[in-house]
Amino acid sequence: MEITSPSNPRLRALARLRRRRDRDAAGVTLVEGVEETTLAVGAGARVREVYWCPDLDDGRAEPLLRTFADQGLDVVRLSRQAFEKVAYREGPDGMLAVMEAPGIPLEGFDPGTPEFLLVGEHIEKPGNLGAILRTADAAGVHGVIAADPVSDWGNPNVVRGSKGAVFAVPVVSATTPDTLAWLHGRGVALVAATPDADLLHTEADLRGPIAIAVGAEKEGLSALMLAAADIRVRIPMVGQVDSLNVATSAAILLYEAVRQRGAG
Amino acid sequence: MEITSPSNPRLRALARLRRRRDRDAAGVTLVEGVEETTLAVGAGARVREVYWCPDLDDGRAEPLLRTFADQGLDVVRLSRQAFEKVAYREGPDGMLAVMEAPGIPLEGFDPGTPEFLLVGEHIEKPGNLGAILRTADAAGVHGVIAADPVSDWGNPNVVRGSKGAVFAVPVVSATTPDTLAWLHGRGVALVAATPDADLLHTEADLRGPIAIAVGAEKEGLSALMLAAADIRVRIPMVGQVDSLNVATSAAILLYEAVRQRGAG
Repeated sequence: MEITSPSNPRLRALARLRRRRDRDAAGVTLVEGVEETTLAVGAGARVREVYWCPDLDDGRAEPLLRTFADQGLDVVRLSRQAFEKVAYREGPDGMLAVMEAPGIPLEGFDPGTPEFLLVGEHIEKPGNLGAILRTADAAGVHGVIAADPVSDWGNPNVVRGSKGAVFAVPVVSATTPDTLAWLHGRGVALVAATPDADLLHTEADLRGPIAIAVGAEKEGLSALMLAAADIRVRIPMVGQVDSLNVATSAAILLYEAVRQRGAG
Repeated sequence: MEITSPSNPRLRALARLRRRRDRDAAGVTLVEGVEETTLAVGAGARVREVYWCPDLDDGRAEPLLRTFADQGLDVVRLSRQAFEKVAYREGPDGMLAVMEAPGIPLEGFDPGTPEFLLVGEHIEKPGNLGAILRTADAAGVHGVIAADPVSDWGNPNVVRGSKGAVFAVPVVSATTPDTLAWLHGRGVALVAATPDADLLHTEADLRGPIAIAVGAEKEGLSALMLAAADIRVRIPMVGQVDSLNVATSAAILLYEAVRQRGAG
């Protein structure tokens, strides 16, 4: 199949998937670029549709196209004009895929024990959510819960920033109250990161069932989350400038837990 | 003083500072935006020139303008058309300053003891260099050395990503051989991060005089740097996806050193 006209109805439906509302309704996300698509497929993402523009491809898409052919997936060819209508990145390389949106409901989430979870509350920047996921994957967490999220897991910039980890790590979206109830019900200790804590993160016992919670870029964790925390910890900071980036804080906390839990 | 014509010679000289060659020749960097400029000034940056566009300012520049007035600094007013010619960010807020470029020569660099340093070798993305600096500032390192750097410390995106930390933390640029000779001469142990090491970063003794070295985004540290290392360490990774981002790796390593050295 080949589409050359930018006004083709299928192409117009594809372009609409840049809007969150339309992605949510279809239960899908968009992944653009040979590298991102390869990482997502490698991480287990389920591919629904593939669009490829031979004119924009410098040959790097070949292994991926072979994988799709092996899986019996139809690849839709697009003219350059048609592809540029649906591409959302600058400097497109001719690969765009529609994949099943990542994310499982809280009710269906059943991590191993002792639980090792990360909660990101009200994170605004998709790039931060993506970076957090990449680190969470490396640290071996059982899952990441986005509490009261601003960006959805299917946001193409989350997918991109995570380098595909969003498909490899179980990801959940839930309200903060539902998240707290769920953690409490399972007996998972909530470890809240806040600059106001007395205890250093290295002084807390992070070996049992835990969920480490980091808050929004500017405001930090909500009063509700802080009040419900079993342990409040702070990362020591001696600098003259700003607080640590939320994704950096998550990395420091996760790897202190990895150290205590014994890994390698 | 007020400039309204986009062809004004001073304005054209200012626009040329977006090029690294012209910044280097003048020994300056550009800082744009009220928040960035405020952070840089607070971190001790030396301001040479200030340009302000009342038409683009929503009133947030006022405290900064008062500071400049107190310091006896002349603020050049620009028309909107003139400001947009020199702005390099999207959505400019009407504030642009020329500041002395950060960075000291290796010969003049004299950190406290026991040394706690970070070396970033061949880092390509200015955003990563900025993020590394922000974390280094929080962790209390004595300085950051860019070895064989691709981005210079005065790159506006490094300044921006560091949230002003580039002016608060001593920063040095040098070749890898010069860096190694300097560290060796001072008796500073080079701790190289590489996924090929046997030793975990948490198993290494990081309490003495150390320089933690992290490498370029794709290739990691050079063979020269790895061969010269006193200790090679790896961060444990269990994930299915990619290696950790270089700024994330730096944060994990720096904060393990902070833990061992005792801080808070």
